[in-house]
Amino acid sequence: MVYNGAAFGGFQVTRDSGVRPASGYGHVPLVEVWRGEALESVHYGTIAVVDSTGRMIASAGDPTTTLVLRSAAKPAQVLPLLDSGAAEHFGFDDEEIAVMIGSHNGEAAHVAAVRSILGKIGLGEEALQCGAHPPFHRPSAMLLHERGVAPTALHNNCSGKHAGMLALAVHLGTPVASYLEETHPVQVRIRAVVEELTGVGAGGARTAIDGCSAPTFAVPIQGAALMYARLTTPGSPPRSRIAAAASRAVAVMHRHPEMVAGSDRLCTALMRAGRGGLVAKVGAEGVYGLGYERGGLGIGIALKIADGEGQRARFSAALETLRQLDALSEGDAAALRSRFVGEQRNHCGLLVGRIATVFVL
Amino acid sequence: MVYNGAAFGGFQVTRDSGVRPASGYGHVPLVEVWRGEALESVHYGTIAVVDSTGRMIASAGDPTTTLVLRSAAKPAQVLPLLDSGAAEHFGFDDEEIAVMIGSHNGEAAHVAAVRSILGKIGLGEEALQCGAHPPFHRPSAMLLHERGVAPTALHNNCSGKHAGMLALAVHLGTPVASYLEETHPVQVRIRAVVEELTGVGAGGARTAIDGCSAPTFAVPIQGAALMYARLTTPGSPPRSRIAAAASRAVAVMHRHPEMVAGSDRLCTALMRAGRGGLVAKVGAEGVYGLGYERGGLGIGIALKIADGEGQRARFSAALETLRQLDALSEGDAAALRSRFVGEQRNHCGLLVGRIATVFVL
Repeated sequence: MVYNGAAFGGFQVTRDSGVRPASGYGHVPLVEVWRGEALESVHYGTIAVVDSTGRMIASAGDPTTTLVLRSAAKPAQVLPLLDSGAAEHFGFDDEEIAVMIGSHNGEAAHVAAVRSILGKIGLGEEALQCGAHPPFHRPSAMLLHERGVAPTALHNNCSGKHAGMLALAVHLGTPVASYLEETHPVQVRIRAVVEELTGVGAGGARTAIDGCSAPTFAVPIQGAALMYARLTTPGSPPRSRIAAAASRAVAVMHRHPEMVAGSDRLCTALMRAGRGGLVAKVGAEGVYGLGYERGGLGIGIALKIADGEGQRARFSAALETLRQLDALSEGDAAALRSRFVGEQRNHCGLLVGRIATVFVL
Repeated sequence: MVYNGAAFGGFQVTRDSGVRPASGYGHVPLVEVWRGEALESVHYGTIAVVDSTGRMIASAGDPTTTLVLRSAAKPAQVLPLLDSGAAEHFGFDDEEIAVMIGSHNGEAAHVAAVRSILGKIGLGEEALQCGAHPPFHRPSAMLLHERGVAPTALHNNCSGKHAGMLALAVHLGTPVASYLEETHPVQVRIRAVVEELTGVGAGGARTAIDGCSAPTFAVPIQGAALMYARLTTPGSPPRSRIAAAASRAVAVMHRHPEMVAGSDRLCTALMRAGRGGLVAKVGAEGVYGLGYERGGLGIGIALKIADGEGQRARFSAALETLRQLDALSEGDAAALRSRFVGEQRNHCGLLVGRIATVFVL
């Protein structure tokens, strides 16, 4: 399949039928890891900053490079539910909507919220098809381990999203068992919203299977940035029926950042500290989606660390991006860096090096 | 400090006084991670393959790029000890010498070997200045945790190396407490050996502090490859007094690969399966050192994954390199790939993508 997106540069088909950005890999060095006075490691990646009118404000690397949205799609994936009236019908509260958008920690409050959603729609946790993994939150995972309790689908960081998808399936009167199939009305609606917000147009997003088995979407990085810009602008996209739903999703993330991630999580801390109503949502494999409002426009940021592993590069790059854009104060950026990136110390506690961002937006 | 290594390209001083390869970052895409038909992540890196005469056989990326050797230096770090006669003096057996070269798993046999070394030189484990971390070997770490026993320096993967350094300090009649200082005779001898084997010449290796607080060395990647080529050629470097020690180190690694790494470790499996007396030694931050003999020459490989995190890229690239060079049979390469890299499955066990190497040496 060849996609010729006019707005965001084309894909081309490679020999093995996969999709590669036309411009090659597209990533540039973003973060250096120094050991003493030697450059030891380098994290490549791409950053795009786009406003809600589609104007590219800044970038590092090739913003047409493909991004698989993973959990950074969640603020968009909840919109068909909010637009359908299901939230009012079932009486979901703000915490419950926030956990639908979250990659939650599997803490008690998250599990309780997901259970409550399922109770309101009359389903049990066996309806969740996200699979099980131990809670992201280490103390919660240790507690389960010590009690000899196996983690369930409720603890999966995506269980809120799945409960929301199930709620929409029930509300629409569509089959529940097949809610993850690409052709299911729930997934068809979600795909349309992602394609609208990212500007790739109908059929422009490639789908793949996410870690939780839901469909996920490959779009240009600048498309992901546009999505976050639109999410954070009231009434955007203009004349779109999902504009009101988008405003509500962002408001809910802001009122309950602890439900979108949890204790000791950068997303939660960023939504508390950021300027302009900053929303922050990580995705697997080195992805960060960020959006805020400035002067009546939404500013969206999409960030991808090419290697997709670990947190040091993603967290450093996200904090530095927000600092350069003045969406985070110098003081907050430094404090969050100290808390979430920390120093390069060895097993003996000696300071052995440093992590440095090397991009200027 | 500016180093102008004639053999291996120059470093240049950057504004922040650090050392960067003259040619820039130097890394190229080595490993792709696909999700469905979308290229999701890319691991950059550099590979150099050099024979024991110094001839570059193959490369991917810029082989003059700096590599911090980390634990890939261990087969060289043991040589001053072997050359000094300390091994005979104290009666170290092959397992004990192998664990000195190892980044061991902290399994019972490793801890026992390190304890035995310390006993033979009349020191207690409090002499080890490597710091403590839980055993790499998960079952061994869980066992300690369940017994409520805190890991000690003995479990540190570098404890064998440190015990060896202490043995040399005792044998030379030099101070024990300062054995990690750069100016200590033990470290001075080690540095000289690393600089000889890597071909950078006296003063050509930059030092930094390793994870275990020992000095580690920054050299060009092709220098690290030359070191492995020389290690695996009997009588190499020619006319060097450490040639005999090098032959012994490699022989010991080969006789006791389980002491160099341990259960479920790729290094150990590679030394059992590889051709030409293959030796394999990982280093932190995405490093692999590999060497084997072919037609009377040593072939050395140094591999660096730029991002330095995780195992999927390092293991994929190492196995593919050995397969392309025919140092590993197709069958063994496939079996080890299946065991150590595995498939890209999600929390529900669905196959969601694949890991592909994209370099041809």
